[in-house]
Amino acid sequence: MDPAARRAPWITFEGGDGVGKTTQARLLEEWLAARGRAVVRTREPGGTEVGERIRELVLHHRGDIAPRAEALLYAADRAHHVATRVLPALARGEVVLQDRYLDSSVAYQGAGRVLGMGEVRDLSLWATGGALPDLTVLLDLDPAAARRRLDADDKPFDRLEAEAAEFHGRVREAFLELAAAEADRFLVVDASEDPERIAERIRARVAPLV
Amino acid sequence: MDPAARRAPWITFEGGDGVGKTTQARLLEEWLAARGRAVVRTREPGGTEVGERIRELVLHHRGDIAPRAEALLYAADRAHHVATRVLPALARGEVVLQDRYLDSSVAYQGAGRVLGMGEVRDLSLWATGGALPDLTVLLDLDPAAARRRLDADDKPFDRLEAEAAEFHGRVREAFLELAAAEADRFLVVDASEDPERIAERIRARVAPLV
Repeated sequence: MDPAARRAPWITFEGGDGVGKTTQARLLEEWLAARGRAVVRTREPGGTEVGERIRELVLHHRGDIAPRAEALLYAADRAHHVATRVLPALARGEVVLQDRYLDSSVAYQGAGRVLGMGEVRDLSLWATGGALPDLTVLLDLDPAAARRRLDADDKPFDRLEAEAAEFHGRVREAFLELAAAEADRFLVVDASEDPERIAERIRARVAPLV
Repeated sequence: MDPAARRAPWITFEGGDGVGKTTQARLLEEWLAARGRAVVRTREPGGTEVGERIRELVLHHRGDIAPRAEALLYAADRAHHVATRVLPALARGEVVLQDRYLDSSVAYQGAGRVLGMGEVRDLSLWATGGALPDLTVLLDLDPAAARRRLDADDKPFDRLEAEAAEFHGRVREAFLELAAAEADRFLVVDASEDPERIAERIRARVAPLV
């Protein structure tokens, strides 16, 4: 079997923290499983043993990490994850549902951190040999509303979540800009809607792919 | 004080494992200290807390790391190290003596790992905003001779040291090629000579810089 062949769709979920990416990935996984499809749920950063160590370093290191170092760590995680987990699963015909991919890097490091969006995107594409998902679901939500959801969860803040609200506003705008630039790849949904209604919209878009 | 200003020379040591980089950095540090110069000894990967964690991951992870992920991890370490340790020291007027820099990435990942040398170099230069040392000392030695020195030390092999001899031959050629391409930046010394004689040659080249 050609390991470069993709025999199943690759679907990524994007958006700020608290918009419901995990919930929607779980609902889609259940729907696909009920239709007999093998599914791999994964995430970036993380998703591999090497990636989990990078994730720990990027998200929970005490003290600053230089902005370019941060972008390079995400790209390193991505290179390893795509080469060793995502592409092999797609070659086996398993649907890959992934929490965050290069659009997150472009939005967070590019727009949020003053590195250029184009540079960060080129870096990610170099990392993976240009691999892009078949569909990217962007869960769009006002950052203040997402913040209220996270507060309700009473989860401790990680390093990125603790950044200023202004930062999250710029990230949201960057996601919407990316979606507009690649309308064929993106499905933008209003994450303030009822989760089951959002899931229906996602299923309608995924059905022709599986 | 302008943190971008470099008020002291930055000197890197390159070459395979076992060629004597640590010995020569120590001898040069002693000589500089005797002349009253403040010196920072550092290394890549490593040299910062973040860097030491990346070093541990790259050199001692059990199992393969995808080649591009490896190159990106070295670049991440470099970005953080140069921004937070090297450039601030140079701005304070401290001489930086550094074990390995971008030439090692180009030689090991570029030539050794089938990634293009130009690509790996571009990645490193992006990581550091184009920062290059004032002098790079290349300690050149036949890989078989270096291997015998390491065996005599009875040190356990790390992941890179355990690679095949053929790999080390390609790395040596790549280092020599890099030195030829930037003859002004490099001092190439025969690492089979007596260490004190090598140290003299290095001091002669460093003297006008301090």
